[in-house]
Amino acid sequence: MSISKSQLKIITSLSQKKYRQNHQLFIAEGLKVVNELLNSSFKIDTLFATDDFQTDISLDKIIRISDKDLQKISNLKAPNKVLGLFVIPDEKPLQKNGLTIVLDTINDPGNLGTIIRLCDWFGVSQLLCSAETVDCYNQKVVQASMGSLTRISIKYIDIEIYLKETNLPTFIADMDGENVYKSALPKEAILIMGNEANGVSDKIKTLIKNKISIPRFGETQETESLNVATATAILLSEFKRSY
Amino acid sequence: MSISKSQLKIITSLSQKKYRQNHQLFIAEGLKVVNELLNSSFKIDTLFATDDFQTDISLDKIIRISDKDLQKISNLKAPNKVLGLFVIPDEKPLQKNGLTIVLDTINDPGNLGTIIRLCDWFGVSQLLCSAETVDCYNQKVVQASMGSLTRISIKYIDIEIYLKETNLPTFIADMDGENVYKSALPKEAILIMGNEANGVSDKIKTLIKNKISIPRFGETQETESLNVATATAILLSEFKRSY
Repeated sequence: MSISKSQLKIITSLSQKKYRQNHQLFIAEGLKVVNELLNSSFKIDTLFATDDFQTDISLDKIIRISDKDLQKISNLKAPNKVLGLFVIPDEKPLQKNGLTIVLDTINDPGNLGTIIRLCDWFGVSQLLCSAETVDCYNQKVVQASMGSLTRISIKYIDIEIYLKETNLPTFIADMDGENVYKSALPKEAILIMGNEANGVSDKIKTLIKNKISIPRFGETQETESLNVATATAILLSEFKRSY
Repeated sequence: MSISKSQLKIITSLSQKKYRQNHQLFIAEGLKVVNELLNSSFKIDTLFATDDFQTDISLDKIIRISDKDLQKISNLKAPNKVLGLFVIPDEKPLQKNGLTIVLDTINDPGNLGTIIRLCDWFGVSQLLCSAETVDCYNQKVVQASMGSLTRISIKYIDIEIYLKETNLPTFIADMDGENVYKSALPKEAILIMGNEANGVSDKIKTLIKNKISIPRFGETQETESLNVATATAILLSEFKRSY
């Protein structure tokens, strides 16, 4: 079989968020990520796979295609046997316990993907994003999250409204904050990470008292601030290490 | 002025390590990175800049070029006013004190660049790399390191020989290692980080007793291991937080 023109049109359109929302579909590629999605609660729509892709799922959802066709629809430098269209799941209800990460306008898909992986590693079950944050079904995010997308509840929210309705202690990562190594960090909390260039926006900052920072040990003051995914890694480690 | 054919040939050749070594030159691009290099002990060879690039350094080393010419020689999606050829500095003598990071076959330029930035942030003054590790003057490394390259002593070494000649306590990041949060970490030490896919090589592993790991807090065992740059961030934070 090969790919029909209408299928090709849908696949191409899914690089844009508005078409992902219209179709309620997103793309995942490659053995590792596709297999993680197939073995999760996510629903498959269609799988385009070359003959050497093996799986146990029902065959009416697999369309066998040539390597050449896979190359045509793939966004990877080295296409890897399979491209799947998956159904965007309903958002889960808001969780009011545990440790929640809130992202204020994260733009880079690689950063969001890395943060999703980190949430999975550190047992953070809920990730809340401002509406301006990059879409988690953007294909670069899906690939960078390496399957962790299936295990984290991700919701897009209005941060100001959310903060007004929560009782959990809330922390902001901020260059001028208190030394995180000397801060008492509760087991259940909200941690807000800000935009790559500008940090957490001023309107959110004014709402929150607790600001924490990772101290700089290098001698010079010229060192660029830590990347937001790297900072998230260190702060999550600090929140979890005592419990 | 414009770029001569021989200059164009050199610039293009510097994407390959052997030509960087022949010419003892590497490329850095964009305002931020070039300015950090100009304000360091690194020596400038030639600067190709558009008219809107301003600097105080002596003019005989600047060649003014058009936006179109900059686009032609740039490797960035959005060229930013200047591309510089800098002289690869002599390696500094081996330091025998402090905290040293050793990289065993790190392949990804972005990972090496991020680790260089982390060394700068955490005051690690020496980074040692196996000969198989990606070259730190690879342009993607230079750009990802955001100027931190100028503040870290980076040497390419034979790890086995180095380990035989050091008396410092040595640690390996290893999935099966002791929980790092429960480990006593000395102020002066060597920390070895391994390849993205395979970790630290077996021949090195057998030489070292102390293996440390970052525990997984998530419930499932399916989570992909942490990215090497992310793991380096967390381990450096652990080594430094008590001192």
